[in-house]
Amino acid sequence: MSQTVYDIIGVGNAIVDVIASCDDAFLTAQNIEKGAMTLIDESRAKDLYSAMAPGKEVSGGSAANTLAGIASFGARGAYIGKVADDELGGIFRHDLNAAGVDYTTKPLAGGPLTARCLINVTPDAQRSMSTFLGASVFFSESDIDADKIAAARITYLEGYLFDRDAAKEAFVRAAEIAKAANRLTSLTLSDSFCVDRHRAAFRQLVRNHVDILFANEAELISLYEANDFDEALEAVKAETRIAAITRSEKGAVLIDKGNVVSIPAEPVSKIVDTTGAGDLFAAGMLTGLAQGLDLEASGRLGAIAAAEIISHIGARPNVSLAELAATNGISLNA
Amino acid sequence: MSQTVYDIIGVGNAIVDVIASCDDAFLTAQNIEKGAMTLIDESRAKDLYSAMAPGKEVSGGSAANTLAGIASFGARGAYIGKVADDELGGIFRHDLNAAGVDYTTKPLAGGPLTARCLINVTPDAQRSMSTFLGASVFFSESDIDADKIAAARITYLEGYLFDRDAAKEAFVRAAEIAKAANRLTSLTLSDSFCVDRHRAAFRQLVRNHVDILFANEAELISLYEANDFDEALEAVKAETRIAAITRSEKGAVLIDKGNVVSIPAEPVSKIVDTTGAGDLFAAGMLTGLAQGLDLEASGRLGAIAAAEIISHIGARPNVSLAELAATNGISLNA
Repeated sequence: MSQTVYDIIGVGNAIVDVIASCDDAFLTAQNIEKGAMTLIDESRAKDLYSAMAPGKEVSGGSAANTLAGIASFGARGAYIGKVADDELGGIFRHDLNAAGVDYTTKPLAGGPLTARCLINVTPDAQRSMSTFLGASVFFSESDIDADKIAAARITYLEGYLFDRDAAKEAFVRAAEIAKAANRLTSLTLSDSFCVDRHRAAFRQLVRNHVDILFANEAELISLYEANDFDEALEAVKAETRIAAITRSEKGAVLIDKGNVVSIPAEPVSKIVDTTGAGDLFAAGMLTGLAQGLDLEASGRLGAIAAAEIISHIGARPNVSLAELAATNGISLNA
Repeated sequence: MSQTVYDIIGVGNAIVDVIASCDDAFLTAQNIEKGAMTLIDESRAKDLYSAMAPGKEVSGGSAANTLAGIASFGARGAYIGKVADDELGGIFRHDLNAAGVDYTTKPLAGGPLTARCLINVTPDAQRSMSTFLGASVFFSESDIDADKIAAARITYLEGYLFDRDAAKEAFVRAAEIAKAANRLTSLTLSDSFCVDRHRAAFRQLVRNHVDILFANEAELISLYEANDFDEALEAVKAETRIAAITRSEKGAVLIDKGNVVSIPAEPVSKIVDTTGAGDLFAAGMLTGLAQGLDLEASGRLGAIAAAEIISHIGARPNVSLAELAATNGISLNA
């Protein structure tokens, strides 16, 4: 196996988040499913934005948030995803590069705008996401950089990309390149509604390509159409080597073949905004696995990163995760 | 005098803030004057942005921040300022409208991009601003809505607009309309370097048009080329009816003709980012004056709003200032 250049390369929807506060009545009035990610078209994006409170714009995208977290841990990350050649696209590119992530995917010319995720955060810190995918799904096999994927220990794929066929094909192609190079492939299921929309394709990908699966309880139960969490756990054990199932304040359950480890959630003085909790759990866990830490230490890195992200608005770390890891007695390679 | 439609109408540079963290070494390396506002051109804006850490985009602009604060107090506000017909311009417009401010200035077509202020925040919470004025100064007398100005109790002008002649003329025109309608005119000096650049014009405007002047110590001393603060205070007393001089942690000194009132700063548990402190002091003070509160209560509203803004990143309030005023026992008209 040749030397790696990256610890992790992520493939995902390149999205800018627009984050605003709202009350529950606003979600009802706007017919927004609380806590979920709903896909919307450009016209709905325009109308919903008009109705929203003043916002903050920050770069987002599930796998991109994970890669920003990985870079903050000091690990070597790269990202593949599509923005438009517009202002929000420029912001997305700048923020990922400035975070220390290698990101060179060519912007889309003459197509729709850069994707945006309109995130309404209720006082209980839940985020409800309405996503206009825009340029992010005009992403195809030609954007998959085979050399970079072959040079990464782990290729990390974001389930949300399944929402468009060309992206899904690019996605499967990335997994095949990783496999051919004897690298690991990881997938996050992203959202239980996303799993509902694409269950069969996800099942096939998990069985054939995925070494490390990320999901929360609802996503895992949906994937296997299980009656309860334990039944879903048994099903996933049979199909992937490593699975990390996040359970909000109950922490996470990690599986490595027969071995099951429970990771408690890190204490947080005040939960402000849960956006990015899963993305950052994956950042810690992938960093640990790529650097050869054991399952428990990798899970703790995930819990530490998730706790940092939910203590403030936005889904990218405000502080150095490498320092947080050190404070918690976990040493990483620089 | 006809009935008013607005308590305050603001005229200013319509700017989107790009806020990122940095250390002092970054300011030195980038040759940025700490704590000041420096004007930069588009090419420098591009280079500096490339070097900056990942950022948050939030609507800014000194007078626009003030108007957002005024609306948060529940007062009736309007704004005049120029953005381009681009994505950041759309964000600026949305955020001001969503805050409850009447804002209808036509965007600039075919000119430079919407203005942006690259704000680097050091660990001591000081903000150093590098501003590319872009579309904001392609603002002229035709953008001054005489009916709106005549319908506002107070017209509030941002000193930063003096950095371009056409904007300065629009500015003076606004003051003349306000005077003709028997309304009050207020000016903020904005920045001591801005005062240095335009001292004579500011002096003339203050003498002939300004009823309520906002400045910090450095700006006031610069305006009068005074030897110390007391000498500057004597000078301003002779030239305006009301002056509010902010002094950071020392609070503010308010003058209403002979009457001098000191307002202590509101306690803040942790100062995170001083961006917008002066803008929000003006929001409280102007709200109080427009609603007929006395000088001291108006100043306290200013101190309350300034304390809220420096306790978080960004220069627009995170909570309802009307509720904060009520908590502090100051009642305002809805």
